[in-house]
Parts: sequence; C-alpha cells; structure tokens
Amino acid sequence: MALVNEHLLKLPDNYLFADLAKRINSYKITHPKAEIINLGIGDVTRPIPQVCIDAMHKAIDDQTNPLTFHGYSPGQGYNFLIDAIIKNDYASRGINLERSEIFINDGAKTDSGNFGEILRHDNSIGVTDPIYPAYIDSNVSCGRAGTLDDGYKWSNVIYMPCTPENNFIPPIPQQRVDIVYLCFPNNPTGTALSKSELRKWVNYALENDTIILFDAAYEAYIQQPDIPHSIYEIKGAKKVAVEFRSFSKTAGFTGIRCGYTVVPKEVTASTLNGKRISLNRLWLQRQCTKFNGASYISQRGAEAIYTPEGKQQVKYIIDYYMENAYIMKKGLSDTGLEVYGGENAPYLWIKAPNQLSSWKFFDKLLYEAQIVCTPGIGFGPSGNEFIRLTSFGDKEKCKEGINRIKRII
Amino acid sequence: MALVNEHLLKLPDNYLFADLAKRINSYKITHPKAEIINLGIGDVTRPIPQVCIDAMHKAIDDQTNPLTFHGYSPGQGYNFLIDAIIKNDYASRGINLERSEIFINDGAKTDSGNFGEILRHDNSIGVTDPIYPAYIDSNVSCGRAGTLDDGYKWSNVIYMPCTPENNFIPPIPQQRVDIVYLCFPNNPTGTALSKSELRKWVNYALENDTIILFDAAYEAYIQQPDIPHSIYEIKGAKKVAVEFRSFSKTAGFTGIRCGYTVVPKEVTASTLNGKRISLNRLWLQRQCTKFNGASYISQRGAEAIYTPEGKQQVKYIIDYYMENAYIMKKGLSDTGLEVYGGENAPYLWIKAPNQLSSWKFFDKLLYEAQIVCTPGIGFGPSGNEFIRLTSFGDKEKCKEGINRIKRII
Repeated sequence: MALVNEHLLKLPDNYLFADLAKRINSYKITHPKAEIINLGIGDVTRPIPQVCIDAMHKAIDDQTNPLTFHGYSPGQGYNFLIDAIIKNDYASRGINLERSEIFINDGAKTDSGNFGEILRHDNSIGVTDPIYPAYIDSNVSCGRAGTLDDGYKWSNVIYMPCTPENNFIPPIPQQRVDIVYLCFPNNPTGTALSKSELRKWVNYALENDTIILFDAAYEAYIQQPDIPHSIYEIKGAKKVAVEFRSFSKTAGFTGIRCGYTVVPKEVTASTLNGKRISLNRLWLQRQCTKFNGASYISQRGAEAIYTPEGKQQVKYIIDYYMENAYIMKKGLSDTGLEVYGGENAPYLWIKAPNQLSSWKFFDKLLYEAQIVCTPGIGFGPSGNEFIRLTSFGDKEKCKEGINRIKRII
Repeated sequence: MALVNEHLLKLPDNYLFADLAKRINSYKITHPKAEIINLGIGDVTRPIPQVCIDAMHKAIDDQTNPLTFHGYSPGQGYNFLIDAIIKNDYASRGINLERSEIFINDGAKTDSGNFGEILRHDNSIGVTDPIYPAYIDSNVSCGRAGTLDDGYKWSNVIYMPCTPENNFIPPIPQQRVDIVYLCFPNNPTGTALSKSELRKWVNYALENDTIILFDAAYEAYIQQPDIPHSIYEIKGAKKVAVEFRSFSKTAGFTGIRCGYTVVPKEVTASTLNGKRISLNRLWLQRQCTKFNGASYISQRGAEAIYTPEGKQQVKYIIDYYMENAYIMKKGLSDTGLEVYGGENAPYLWIKAPNQLSSWKFFDKLLYEAQIVCTPGIGFGPSGNEFIRLTSFGDKEKCKEGINRIKRII
C-alpha cells in the first residue's frame, strides 16, 4: 500500500490563522453590529504602482499576436528583469552578481519553503524566535525539525530568542548550526539589524560552515542608512548566504506573484565525503525539475518597478504604510504600552500589558475595542507576551483603531 | 558543516534539452544560412483567447483601486474559478467534486513535481516508458527513484513500456506498485487510453492500494468520444486517483501560469501503523506551508475560458493545432514512416527508419532537412527508436517542414 510522509502529520492541525478566524467569527456571530478593525492584516491593501499596471497591460497585449507572444519563461526568468534587479538592487550597492545567480519565482514563500530540498534532511537548523512560521513548517515536512515537544518547540530546531532584553538581535548560538534562517527587517518584530550586527552573523557562518537563508522581503521599508538592504553588503556573505526577495510588500504584488532568490555560485555545501557542491547548481536542477518559470505578465510588471517613475510610485506606497506605522507606534506608546519595530518595517511588536498572554490580549482587544491583532505565540515561544500589528491597512482605519486601543489601556 | 541532498547529484548533468540546444547551435554555426524549422517545439505559439485577454485587462484594472484590489489569493484559489472548473470540467461529465477538492496552482509541473512530498520516500513508483522526464526527476531528488544504472533506467522505478506492439497501452504490472504516473493523452507518444483501458488501471489501483497520479494536461485535444477526459469518469477513481490539469496547452497559458490539481477527499494512503490519511488534508498542509496562491490575473484569465465565447475560442486554437497534427501525420505516413499519435493529442511519435537510433535520426533530420525534432531517448529507454514531433508550430512552417522530411525519406 502507498504510505504517507508521516512527518507532515506532526504539524499541528490548528494553524494560528485558522484559530484566529474562528475566534473572530464567533465574536461576529455574538456581536453582529460590531465594526471590527483589522490591524493584524498580513496582506497589503494599496493599489499597485501605475507603471506596473501599464506594463502588465502591455504584456497582456503581447499575448494577442504570434510575433510578440511569450510562452514558457526561461527557467530562471527573463533577462530584462534579471538585469534590472542586478543593476538597481545590487550593483548600486557595490554588489556584483551574474545573471545566473538570480532565480525569478512566483513569490518568496515558494522558494524559501522549497530551498531546504537541496540540503540533507538531517542538517541542524537555527531560527530566530519569534519567526515567520513557514520556515519551520517547511522543515517539519522533510523530518528536519524533529518532533513538537511541548506544543511550541521542535526538538531539532535551535531557537535564538529575540527579546527586548537583547534589542531583538538574535544571539549567536554557542554550538555550530548548519542552516540559519534570518529575516531582517523582521517579521513579526519589525526590528532591523545594523551592518555590524549582521556582520557577526556572516563571520559566524564563515567560521562554522553555516548556510544563512536570508529573507529580505521587507528591505524596501528600511529608513535608516546603517541598515543593510542586502546581506551581500557584508564582506564574505557571497560565500555563505542565499537571499530571498519579494515584490509583494515592495509594490503590492501579493496578488500578482513575483519575487526572486539570489544564489551566488560561491555558496557551497558538502557531500558526506567532503566534496563541495555549489548550491546554485543544485537549485537550478531543482527548479528545472519542479518549476516552469514565473508569469511573463508578472515579470513585466516587476521590471517596471525599476524605472524612475516606478521607484517614485513604490516610495509613495512605502511612505503611506510607514506613516501608518509612525501614527500607530506614537499612539500606542503614548498609552504606556511597550512598542517595538515600526521604524524600518511595516510591523509593530507590542508587549501585552499586565503579564497577559498573547491570546488573552488578543481577546481583550477584540472584545473591548473590536480590534483584530495577531497573537505573538503564533510566531514562536518568545512571542507569548506579545502581539503583532501591521501598518498595511487604510490610514483612517489605523487612526481609529489606535484611538480605540487608547481608550481601553 | 551543511550537507547537500546527495540524491540531487544523481541527476545526470546533461539534460536532453541542453544537449539538444548544443547540437542545434553547432549546426547553426557551421551552417549560418540554413533556415531551421523546429517541429520539436514543446511550447505553444498561438495567441491566447481574446476573452482571456479581456478578463486579464479587467483584473489588472481591479488592482488600481483599494476597493477592488486583490492581494493574496485564497490558498486553494478563488471560488469564481473553482466553481467554473467544477461545473464545466466535472459536473458536465457526471462527476461531483467539492470546492475543497480543487487546488488552483501556477502550472501542472509544479504540483505534479511537488506532490511526491506528501508520500513516503520509499514508496515504489511505476511509470510509462516513454514518459515526461520531470515525473522521474522529481522522485530522484527525494531518493525514491534509486540509482541510475545504465544511463537510462532508475533502479527503484518500474517501467511499463508503451510500444507499437501493445498499441502504447501501458501493461498492468505483475507486482504491486505504490504510486503510478499516467499521462493520457500521452506526452510524448500522442496516444490516448479508452475508457475500458483506463478502467483496468483504476481497478488495479483499487485492488492494490495504489495511488494513480493522472496527468490530463492534454484532455482538450481529445477528439474521439470513447476517450475519457478525466480519470474520474471511471467508477472508483475518486478513491485512488489525483488528477493534474493545466490551462497551458488548452488556452496557451504557458506564459500566464495557471493550472489545477484535483485531490478527492476519498483518496487515502497509510501510515506505517495502518492508519488511513486523506491526501487532500496532507496536500492542503503542504500548500499552506510552501505556496502563496496563484496570480489573481491568471485566475481571472482562466475563468474566462469557461464562458461560451471562451470555449469557442479555445476550440479554435485546438482545431488549429489538430489540423497541423493531421497534416503532419498524413504527410509523414505517406512516406512510409510509422507515425503514431496525433489524433487525440498534439504529439506525433515517429519510428526512426532503418533501425536508426533517435539521436541518429535527429541528426539526419537536422543536417539533411534542417528540421528539429525531439529524440525519443530523452523520454525513456523505449524511446530510443523514436522521435517526437509536435503540432504547436505555425501551420505554414509545419507544411514546409513535412515537405522537407518527405524529400529525404
């Protein structure tokens, strides 16, 4: 008989977001007239830049004529987009990349989830705590994460707690770790790493033969000059780091689907016999087998982001969200709440008052202020006294939401 | 140190298509004036239906306004598309499916490649020979295929030869097999399975607790009434089969990226302890972890295929390609070549004359007629005396190509 991959059965049935939706629904049923404001929303809400709209209309028209028709994309993506990425996101920061080091995809979640496939199932992994849950879940399915011991911690995962006490800077582990996930600016804490802090991680990886999987999906939100936008701004990173980028939060592409992964040719891992293998080669093989390229329409849309008008329009969107973040952070701080993040990221990480757990604070906000947030425990054990708010909503709703919270704190 | 997944290193470096491109290039360099006609092209060339173009323009305009903006798609896809699929592709054939049994994706290759993740790494697999290579390659990467023994056969794969002698009907294996890949209408042979032949497979699967992964990407090309479009036309199939569908070859969506997978809730596989687990549940868990939904634009485009105008426009495209197939098959048969397929599929499978190997016949066609084909050996050991032609090209080029072949046979 066919057998299932039992590792997948270890994933708890109740996902955070399913649980959350259930609680909101039961509130709605008992309070049908309540006007709920969702400040926990993980998706963008602003229209995408007009240059992208125009470029995608044009790309669709290309599909009406055999002479301009575009079928399967080249596996790693079209050079028009790859060249724009290299020039604008990397060369402008002094980073040299070859075309074949960029892999265009349908979104960062896909690649950051699938990337583990090219690495052995028994590598050790290290994650910041709190963390975007998909990183761990994708390791559960191949057995790499071990077992879920107490409902929140996986036996083979090394957690690096990020707390107010360490300014949300993940502590370098005492032991060596094979693969480390870093996401900065961070989801959910909204905090960022300075160049000197990130350098410590690159040096650790160089010394310990560690692969860093670096998620830079929120780099467009960085406001301060000393925060690196790419891990390759750090010397030596091209030997140890893979970088995931996304247009989802940069240009509102969550419904368009386009992102990219950088796999420098110098990044290697080892066979059991000690032979070094380029991860670029392995990732290309994996993608050739299981991926058929990103949409031509989406790639043309993404290309437009890099035009002068595109950059201006993206900045306008980012500024909108960051103004929301400023308003939210100021308003909540005024109540005496401890509020972190929100300065280089669209996320605010808020300590629950009076030792409330994250679910208790969630309930309080929902029942007393009709505000939806995301309970921190969903992002890991260190999140149990926190909630996450995002600045992705409508400005007026953000303002009203914060005023409601002010009234109950 | 981080270790690589060494299974991936078993994949031969020289892919068929890379090898093919190399030979074509070296011909072009030595014969710069030659006008090559590619009859091996695996991609569509006709514009996509106007209804899809219109729908996608509208979908893009939706993204310009916060009130109509669409961010992340629901994980399994939008109900507008799922409902159109259920109504048109299934209910119309007497097949009842629930919304939650349909998973919209960015293309059938992605899902057919990834689906193996939810099954144990040591299940046995059976494949038709010849076969679309990605099915096997995706099993190599998790170790399920074993080792490549003689350059063409994997040690843990059960090959079911499809030859002229058995009318390209895969023989039911003597032993039991855990997972069987079937693609009908078939790529590369262009042949189809009648209802009674497919019924034998479903019955085999029911008796042997086998999972059938059924690729129906070419169902739109079926012309004869006794050929099933879906495996669920066979009684009992909902207990044993997963079906992969694609809009790529139906409506020219290779550059748009949209397809879907049907995972009926009744399909189960077992844990080591004998507990039955629904694959629908496992696949949902896998997708939640590693996929963020298909493009809203592409889903709106796909929805339009199911309108009355859409159906008519799709039929026009299919008729165009099938007329090419008819012209090609007739022309080649007239030369005395053995030509198979091309009646319910866009593929022709042609026996190389005079016991030539597929690469030798490839070279002959390229050097003597400036025609590009795909050597059958790339699809498995049984393909070594065959080549594949496709009807995806321009009609005039198809005609000229066949005339050129006629002159050299």
